[in-house]
Amino acid sequence: MTTIGFLVRTGRYGIADGLRAAHPEVEFLVADSIDALRPALGRMDALIVATPLYSPAVADLLRNEAPRLRWMQTLSSGVDSVLKHGLPAQLTLTSAIGAHAAPVADHAMALLLALFRGVPSIALGQARRQWAQASQRAGLREIEGCRAAMLGYGHIGRGIVRRLQAFGATVTAVNRTGQGAGEAERLLPVSALSDALVGADILMLCLPGEAASRPLVDGPALDLLAPGAVVVNVGRGSSLDTAALVERLRSGHLAGAALDVFEHEPLAPDDPLWTEPGLIVSPHLAGNGDGVAARIEALIADNLQRFLNGDALRNRVTR
Amino acid sequence: MTTIGFLVRTGRYGIADGLRAAHPEVEFLVADSIDALRPALGRMDALIVATPLYSPAVADLLRNEAPRLRWMQTLSSGVDSVLKHGLPAQLTLTSAIGAHAAPVADHAMALLLALFRGVPSIALGQARRQWAQASQRAGLREIEGCRAAMLGYGHIGRGIVRRLQAFGATVTAVNRTGQGAGEAERLLPVSALSDALVGADILMLCLPGEAASRPLVDGPALDLLAPGAVVVNVGRGSSLDTAALVERLRSGHLAGAALDVFEHEPLAPDDPLWTEPGLIVSPHLAGNGDGVAARIEALIADNLQRFLNGDALRNRVTR
Repeated sequence: MTTIGFLVRTGRYGIADGLRAAHPEVEFLVADSIDALRPALGRMDALIVATPLYSPAVADLLRNEAPRLRWMQTLSSGVDSVLKHGLPAQLTLTSAIGAHAAPVADHAMALLLALFRGVPSIALGQARRQWAQASQRAGLREIEGCRAAMLGYGHIGRGIVRRLQAFGATVTAVNRTGQGAGEAERLLPVSALSDALVGADILMLCLPGEAASRPLVDGPALDLLAPGAVVVNVGRGSSLDTAALVERLRSGHLAGAALDVFEHEPLAPDDPLWTEPGLIVSPHLAGNGDGVAARIEALIADNLQRFLNGDALRNRVTR
Repeated sequence: MTTIGFLVRTGRYGIADGLRAAHPEVEFLVADSIDALRPALGRMDALIVATPLYSPAVADLLRNEAPRLRWMQTLSSGVDSVLKHGLPAQLTLTSAIGAHAAPVADHAMALLLALFRGVPSIALGQARRQWAQASQRAGLREIEGCRAAMLGYGHIGRGIVRRLQAFGATVTAVNRTGQGAGEAERLLPVSALSDALVGADILMLCLPGEAASRPLVDGPALDLLAPGAVVVNVGRGSSLDTAALVERLRSGHLAGAALDVFEHEPLAPDDPLWTEPGLIVSPHLAGNGDGVAARIEALIADNLQRFLNGDALRNRVTR
């Protein structure tokens, strides 16, 4: 018999229901703590895991008490925290990469358009019942004709590029190698980052988490952007030097910024970012959307069938 | 000598500067009231007019005192108010249609994404310094897979359709005849409006002003939309029955709406729309963008050259 464990939040306990009906020959165990799964670790073949529930302690237990475990599937697209905590060497790790692409790309565009079209001012003016047309129309911008730089060019980055182009922007995308599919006008390797940033009106960040000692986008990088540029980050807070960003908002070099991710989350109530003029603080919402759960469940169902058949799994993470 | 009058707001007095340099043979007169232009009406060949400064009184003066006047160019895309006030029969009327298409389409998408991605809640939460991730992520939506209906399919409507499709929506567009260029998956005549609305998740309105006695989109029309649909209006307030909209927000049939236009503007401070849950009030901002003035000035320069050459003018309004 094959045994599949689910280490997920209680709100996701239903995730195995469809699988149980399709695979009566498989044992499915669902819990929100590794302690509850511990008695079954010795016979467990695969683990489906909500990334926030994975920890060094879970990794140790899997190494020491799960000798049969060959596959681990995350519910998240990013696996940087899993890799940081470590995992047994024999495991095949698969992610949910792609499942969150649509909402993250939508959220990135929502934040960019919030900056260009003054949506926070609209919301705050509405709360005060103020028809502030004269003040609110000052400075409204359009994306048509803008030059954009897209840092990170996986599923999400390509989705953002497709959206930006429909608004009339031209986009230089940046990934590790400068190679790959996609419709950006230019694709550069990260070694040519400066060429992508010079004169860009829009900087979009959707980089995976890295163990880098310093952020890829620092003050000198921001200085390359066009005067009045805006910055949107929906990737990882560690990619962007927030202090350098704030300096350039205050100097007027940057017209605005919107952050969905931060170096330390949640942002503390006394963090000065909350009240920085021109800065939108979005509390790490981008990955949420009404189609995500169905896409992850379809992926798990497909990968489970592949696992049972001995076929290659989708979304395998190269370590 | 040719005489061209400009009836524009004082902030736009520079609009004739480039033309003066290019056409030393033409007399240019710029004012913000028809009284200031009145002494020159007798020799005026053309009038460039900011639509809000046009009135029945201006129309009367043009009829009675401007016998040479052959061309009138508006700075606005919509000319419904000009046609309502009337104008001399011999005039060729040209609009700035197309000049506002990019910002209006951007604004429509900004409002749609504000509804789908909870941007007003993000802004209000930020003002309270609240990391309200758990409550704010509930109900976030993605455009991918949505069915949209686009009412109005001119420059702006086609721009909105192109943007919606880049997000993964499929779009049924509606115009008067059901004929015309564009990339919508379906294009229907307004006589088949119901077919466009049935089951749509997103209703976008960008209809020109009409003399119709009742709004095209009324309660029964809204009832055809999918449960949980959203409505965005960037055209004219008279196209949408606001009371019927509010009823359907309260019943839960509609999940949200965003209005940039209203039957009576500005909205009064005690208008209940300001505080209607799920409704975004945008104070008629959509047409504003940083590229609009340059596009209008290029259009006027081109049309002036055509006028002087006796060629056909661009953006001629069929009456």
